[in-house]
Amino acid sequence: MAKPPFKLLEGSLTAPRGFRAAGVFCDIKRLGTGKGSEKGQKRDLGLIASEVPAAVAGMYTTNQVCAAPVKISAERTAKDRAQVIVVNSGNANACTGKRGLKDADLMTATAARELRLDKIDVLVCSTGRIGVEMPMENVKSGIISAARLLDNSRESAAHVAEAIMTSDSRPKEIAVEFRIGAETIRIGGICKGAGMIQPGMSPNGARPASSLHATMLGFITTDAAIDPKTLKRCLEIAVAQSFNRITVDGDMSTNDTVLVLANGVAGNKLITRSTRDGLKNFQAALDHVCLELAKMIVRDGEGVSRFVTVHVHGAKTSSDAEAAARAIANSSLVKTSWFGGDPNWGRILDAIGYSAAMIIEDKIDVGYSRSGEKKITYALKQGVPTTVPFATLVKLVAEKEFELHVFLNLGSGHAVVYTCDLTEEYVEFNKGDVSNPAALGG
Amino acid sequence: MAKPPFKLLEGSLTAPRGFRAAGVFCDIKRLGTGKGSEKGQKRDLGLIASEVPAAVAGMYTTNQVCAAPVKISAERTAKDRAQVIVVNSGNANACTGKRGLKDADLMTATAARELRLDKIDVLVCSTGRIGVEMPMENVKSGIISAARLLDNSRESAAHVAEAIMTSDSRPKEIAVEFRIGAETIRIGGICKGAGMIQPGMSPNGARPASSLHATMLGFITTDAAIDPKTLKRCLEIAVAQSFNRITVDGDMSTNDTVLVLANGVAGNKLITRSTRDGLKNFQAALDHVCLELAKMIVRDGEGVSRFVTVHVHGAKTSSDAEAAARAIANSSLVKTSWFGGDPNWGRILDAIGYSAAMIIEDKIDVGYSRSGEKKITYALKQGVPTTVPFATLVKLVAEKEFELHVFLNLGSGHAVVYTCDLTEEYVEFNKGDVSNPAALGG
Repeated sequence: MAKPPFKLLEGSLTAPRGFRAAGVFCDIKRLGTGKGSEKGQKRDLGLIASEVPAAVAGMYTTNQVCAAPVKISAERTAKDRAQVIVVNSGNANACTGKRGLKDADLMTATAARELRLDKIDVLVCSTGRIGVEMPMENVKSGIISAARLLDNSRESAAHVAEAIMTSDSRPKEIAVEFRIGAETIRIGGICKGAGMIQPGMSPNGARPASSLHATMLGFITTDAAIDPKTLKRCLEIAVAQSFNRITVDGDMSTNDTVLVLANGVAGNKLITRSTRDGLKNFQAALDHVCLELAKMIVRDGEGVSRFVTVHVHGAKTSSDAEAAARAIANSSLVKTSWFGGDPNWGRILDAIGYSAAMIIEDKIDVGYSRSGEKKITYALKQGVPTTVPFATLVKLVAEKEFELHVFLNLGSGHAVVYTCDLTEEYVEFNKGDVSNPAALGG
Repeated sequence: MAKPPFKLLEGSLTAPRGFRAAGVFCDIKRLGTGKGSEKGQKRDLGLIASEVPAAVAGMYTTNQVCAAPVKISAERTAKDRAQVIVVNSGNANACTGKRGLKDADLMTATAARELRLDKIDVLVCSTGRIGVEMPMENVKSGIISAARLLDNSRESAAHVAEAIMTSDSRPKEIAVEFRIGAETIRIGGICKGAGMIQPGMSPNGARPASSLHATMLGFITTDAAIDPKTLKRCLEIAVAQSFNRITVDGDMSTNDTVLVLANGVAGNKLITRSTRDGLKNFQAALDHVCLELAKMIVRDGEGVSRFVTVHVHGAKTSSDAEAAARAIANSSLVKTSWFGGDPNWGRILDAIGYSAAMIIEDKIDVGYSRSGEKKITYALKQGVPTTVPFATLVKLVAEKEFELHVFLNLGSGHAVVYTCDLTEEYVEFNKGDVSNPAALGG
């Protein structure tokens, strides 16, 4: 494998130059435990700010029920420039009607006033329970506190990564560095996921031709100088191969959002569509950041015990390949068999058989490989079980991470989906506790 | 409510005159515990036989991966007449290639030889693990034993209902009686379900225009005299409103089959498309039998703790209504919230938002009613939460059975889907135990 054209750095959002961050606890779930993270509460509100106006690109849920902050941010990213992102967990501000829109707008206005900007340069994202009004007193005081704490430390970025967590067990951060000409460019990112995870995002909420289906939030900063149209195109490409290729439970959220701010502080020659190497390197680094963040979401999905990469090769079309891969990845029976470490290829065949993909049973090969290894051990060849002992297959599926390969042998369509098993812990977590509504999930 | 035009009887398959049944244990899973149900083992092979040739109709899985017995039975039901059904649990005879087809055919030939019939008058159905060859020695000796036990007792029918069980916790039987003119007609039926349940059956495996998605098996006997073409049409209508409206886990099996044998022993005037009252009464009784059997499958689904009837009203089209109802019924997050007794309408809105149905968020009403009651308590009106206290909604969803009503208020499309919650028991059951392959499920 060729050496990747970038190196990994510590930290995330504040690794690129000219970015500041802050995360605070302002009791958005109204636990009534007193405010301030000094009380040992998980932070629930964050600010991400560029020191100068930045090019912006966003990808948003294609769910027809989309949250108020999605509507406002999608509108504002259309104008190519932004400077600040306000984000909270604990309340999705979805299904909250006109009041929700007013609250989301007020969140941006509050941040703008504190930072002496125009509110249209401020974006907003929310995640948490659907259908509950935002506790605006708490939120406003949170934004004011965060605005005063903004700095470029690694800790502050980590605080935002914490603030966006809902059912996530850990924060998710990454940063990379690469060169364009003489200049060093950095890209940093954070994300959150856990449940309601099968994003299908587009730049404007319009459904892609092949209809895809967490709340997942991803925030990326870079000091690259890049033309906004080119940035939007780069983000679309990166998301199509990363966040839009993951599924935990097959549910697409009302709030899925990925945002990138590119502030140009690195001073490189502006990247445009016609830039050659610069664009290629930027895309490769952005692809890597998005894919690693997306995989972190799956690995930390609610109750997940196994991470599975599903490859479908040789489908008649690439949309057939995707349909087959998603049918496998979203089948309750396939996912529970993985939880049990059972290489039950019968359930896999069943799932592709009812998918929209065209298949011919006696042309299908099914095999397993260790994560990142090329050698495939086949369970099935041309629709017939191989002589590989059951115990050998069990050993492969017993790994924390493995890859499934399905060859339809009908064409050249290919798709990859990153997914996980379905466990009792997922069910236990999501059944919630109705005696404690404040603790109920999204 | 008008009195139904039929009365309920005890028993099932042998309630109609001229039918015999038998169920035996022949160790299809090769547990090695010795043969014969006298050892206390659950029966695993059954025979259903009409004393005279009968009109036949069948509905089969539309999964592209379909089991050998489905292929053989579908071909034979096309010729309108049949007399015997051989059925086994413990092995689905799916993904077993040419050998599987030969075995399925041999099962029918064995039964035919014992009963002195032509094998083309014998149908075959299997359910159980996919991708394992049939243990033909055991199966053949089972068929021979069953053929010798055939009788018209209620117990024998109950033995077949037991023989088709896989993860079912209990057998599922029903019988009804009604009149056509001076004649008394009876219909009896049994079925099995539990997991891999979201049937989408058609008479010939061709997918219905609105693509739907267990193994579920249903066997129905009737002593009505009915023209085979009319019988096929009646079964299509009945299945469309019953077995094809249920989902436990969203997985459509490779083996789903519903068969009906109508032997004419009642001596009524032949029912044809142009018969008026006779046809209407027959359809109503068959509809009832199929719907009650289908609901039994959902109530006894793997790990099920709650039975939910999902109504979508006022969709733009009926296929939109169905898409929305199935998105709700198959959402892991909605199903786990029901397990927790959480009236989480946010997850419901999320699911219909990513479905293929057209929706407008601020036109949607969502409410709950007690099972069979008309009064709806609304959680949401025009996309905005009502003032109904959370505790009131919790009380409704705490019931073992309740009904969910979603009004899209966009047109006159309507759909009903019968479903259940997703529980830890489902996961525990389906993860299986790889250290004991013989005990692994389908």
